[in-house]
Amino acid sequence: MTAAFDHVRQLLKQLPGLGLRSAERIALHLLAERPERLGPLLDALRSAASALRRCPRCGNLCEGELCAICADPRRDTRRLCVVERIPDLLALERAGAHDGRYHVLHGKLSPIQGVGPEHLNFAGLAERLDEEGVGEVILALSNDIEGEATCHYIRETFLTARPAVAASRIGFGIPSGGALTYADPATLKNAIDARRHWDTAGGAC
Amino acid sequence: MTAAFDHVRQLLKQLPGLGLRSAERIALHLLAERPERLGPLLDALRSAASALRRCPRCGNLCEGELCAICADPRRDTRRLCVVERIPDLLALERAGAHDGRYHVLHGKLSPIQGVGPEHLNFAGLAERLDEEGVGEVILALSNDIEGEATCHYIRETFLTARPAVAASRIGFGIPSGGALTYADPATLKNAIDARRHWDTAGGAC
Repeated sequence: MTAAFDHVRQLLKQLPGLGLRSAERIALHLLAERPERLGPLLDALRSAASALRRCPRCGNLCEGELCAICADPRRDTRRLCVVERIPDLLALERAGAHDGRYHVLHGKLSPIQGVGPEHLNFAGLAERLDEEGVGEVILALSNDIEGEATCHYIRETFLTARPAVAASRIGFGIPSGGALTYADPATLKNAIDARRHWDTAGGAC
Repeated sequence: MTAAFDHVRQLLKQLPGLGLRSAERIALHLLAERPERLGPLLDALRSAASALRRCPRCGNLCEGELCAICADPRRDTRRLCVVERIPDLLALERAGAHDGRYHVLHGKLSPIQGVGPEHLNFAGLAERLDEEGVGEVILALSNDIEGEATCHYIRETFLTARPAVAASRIGFGIPSGGALTYADPATLKNAIDARRHWDTAGGAC
């Protein structure tokens, strides 16, 4: 293959979810099979890159002064959901699972990978808790050691001093439609730990 | 999400192998998480698009006058391998399966999808057969009805009048490492049809 083609393929391969074969397929598509698609894509990426920035309040993507969620007066400001990354926010939005605002950390604490609090978007979180009338912080962070550590840090740094703000962590267990047979041991343990007791006094379920 | 972001996501989703989620992930990666990767990728795509063209002889990608394979004097010009697409050529090259030259059709005949001979790269094929000293045409086309029809067309149009040029079609059957249990009926039928008889006179295998 030519050097120019190989360079494109190598850069595409660095993108998330793309291996050498899929990067090659996309490079061939844009450079040989459907070259008419390349110009519009380059234009869209270039103009999006100059139009988009991080919402100064929550860290979500935005084009204007604030992101669409922070700027939406219908969002319930009492519940603030903390997520690691924008895709997590998008997934919760698609699910319609949260009608409050978000705070995007852009990562999670990881001493092993050298990610400390100074690398995460904690800027303004204290002010938000004090000024936006937040009654509950929902920690929607990963179900792993780093997610756990990040939750612990947030509790110690932001929540211990604010007893009026409730804190919760999203539930862990068997996913919707998931079969116990195929669940891994950690998930099964989570599911047992997160069991909800029934009120059997009321009668049959 | 913002309009600029959504536009990028929609265009990325049109690329082969990308769905909405993977397109979104790549858009976020380039626009929010690793924006420093966007510039080099745009530059590489832009310069590759202006540097690359189809090899006028075989239809492969090339930067110079001919592609690297057509320009390579070590390639065996006696065997010409006809493929549908450049990725097929790349796969054969990676496998080291063919040391001759190629001819890339950029598609296959498909009356249902309105693809006739005039849409495929048959230009120059007759001249190549006459001038390059081709002794065998290896038809490395898909194992489906369209691939079959394309082979038939090539035979009638180019090979019947040239009895000195041998023609072959690549073998079909169980892939390397493949288990019979999971093979589909058409593959199993191909495999039986393509069976090779052993020379049992020589002793045990």
